[in-house]
Amino acid sequence: MLHDDVVDNAPLRRGKASANTIFGNEAAVLVGDYLFAKSFKVLSDINNIKVIKSYSDATTLMAEGEVKELVKTADIKTGEKDYLDIIIKKTAVLFACASEVGAIIAGKEEKCAKKLYDYGLNIGIAFQLMDDALDYISDKEFGKFIGNDLKEGKLTLPLIHAIERANKDEKEVITDIIYKKRLTSKDLKTVLSLVKSYGSIDYTISKAKDAIKKAKKNLDIFPDSKYKNSLIDIADYIIDRKL
Amino acid sequence: MLHDDVVDNAPLRRGKASANTIFGNEAAVLVGDYLFAKSFKVLSDINNIKVIKSYSDATTLMAEGEVKELVKTADIKTGEKDYLDIIIKKTAVLFACASEVGAIIAGKEEKCAKKLYDYGLNIGIAFQLMDDALDYISDKEFGKFIGNDLKEGKLTLPLIHAIERANKDEKEVITDIIYKKRLTSKDLKTVLSLVKSYGSIDYTISKAKDAIKKAKKNLDIFPDSKYKNSLIDIADYIIDRKL
Repeated sequence: MLHDDVVDNAPLRRGKASANTIFGNEAAVLVGDYLFAKSFKVLSDINNIKVIKSYSDATTLMAEGEVKELVKTADIKTGEKDYLDIIIKKTAVLFACASEVGAIIAGKEEKCAKKLYDYGLNIGIAFQLMDDALDYISDKEFGKFIGNDLKEGKLTLPLIHAIERANKDEKEVITDIIYKKRLTSKDLKTVLSLVKSYGSIDYTISKAKDAIKKAKKNLDIFPDSKYKNSLIDIADYIIDRKL
Repeated sequence: MLHDDVVDNAPLRRGKASANTIFGNEAAVLVGDYLFAKSFKVLSDINNIKVIKSYSDATTLMAEGEVKELVKTADIKTGEKDYLDIIIKKTAVLFACASEVGAIIAGKEEKCAKKLYDYGLNIGIAFQLMDDALDYISDKEFGKFIGNDLKEGKLTLPLIHAIERANKDEKEVITDIIYKKRLTSKDLKTVLSLVKSYGSIDYTISKAKDAIKKAKKNLDIFPDSKYKNSLIDIADYIIDRKL
């Protein structure tokens, strides 16, 4: 998150001034490095190389996803497949790793670890889809504004879906707005109404719901328990959250 | 190195444009994260948790050292003890880890690993001492200029040693220069002549030589071999290098 806010030049994190705003980029980069290194130190105390492998696989993919997202900034040709690849890497693999590690530490068989990995991956995909949908819906909450991603040139599914359906003129309008350095509230309204006219926010939410269905299905092999119920509740919360 | 150059705002790396100059801070931070995560992934394939512990210990300390160096920037009260703590953490533990891991992978007893760790630590200390001495000596080489550290407000041993011996007036002059945003060539000359007048460069080099002596002593328990000779050559090269 520290590095994320440096990369995004984000002034806010959950509605409060971000670390880079208060302490500068230098400190935010270094303290991010410290926490990253420290996390491996803490994990290595578990004395289980499988945990390290899961975590290092996840963090490598996350950085790959972040780089791909940066490369695709303001790229009007970004398709749904690119988008899915980016959100799986930058977000979902972290959820997957966190879920899988539970099974690894508990010494459960590989099949359980795999199912929990997939459960995490699917709720992670849903989480990012909802986050990107909310960015086109929600108001000033958790440091988010309507069109925050758009302002940063980030093409997320609501916009990608609309662009793929837009006619030539509409595409040109969107392209011009994406290339602009500063967006006016008129620009935001133009894009928002196009996104709404193609049902692209609803499409994004429906994709999130699909992923949550898959996530719950991944839990089928586990016997009923309050722990399993909690995992189901977490999955449902991802769709229900409004912030 | 990628994060280092972002933190230092360094335009050059070994005389060539640094990654942050060419690709921007965002890419440099993210690709740095990628390489860091990937290094743990590669290491975990060795299937030896001791290697991971050594590397995560080292990288945690390195980040700690970098943060401490940042906090101590332009702090005239930085003493030799602070300086040693910083260079041990930010530089020497990496050399120590790299040496120690050789013994760990070879399955050698703990005593050997410890001696190689200390060997690496000592050559690392010497390396940084020489680097900081050369910054007050060398010309445009490897992207370094005379007084590069001084320009960045980095107090290294040559300057710390001089400040500890300077009279009240001299201390004031140095303090004023350290606080300045842009140093003139006159400023650089003033500090350099003070550093030279107190023999502070020679003092720094003598400290490096002490560390190299200790490093060679750490190798005493190993039988003679061409490999041991190589380690001795590396130690000697650290003092002999001119770049």
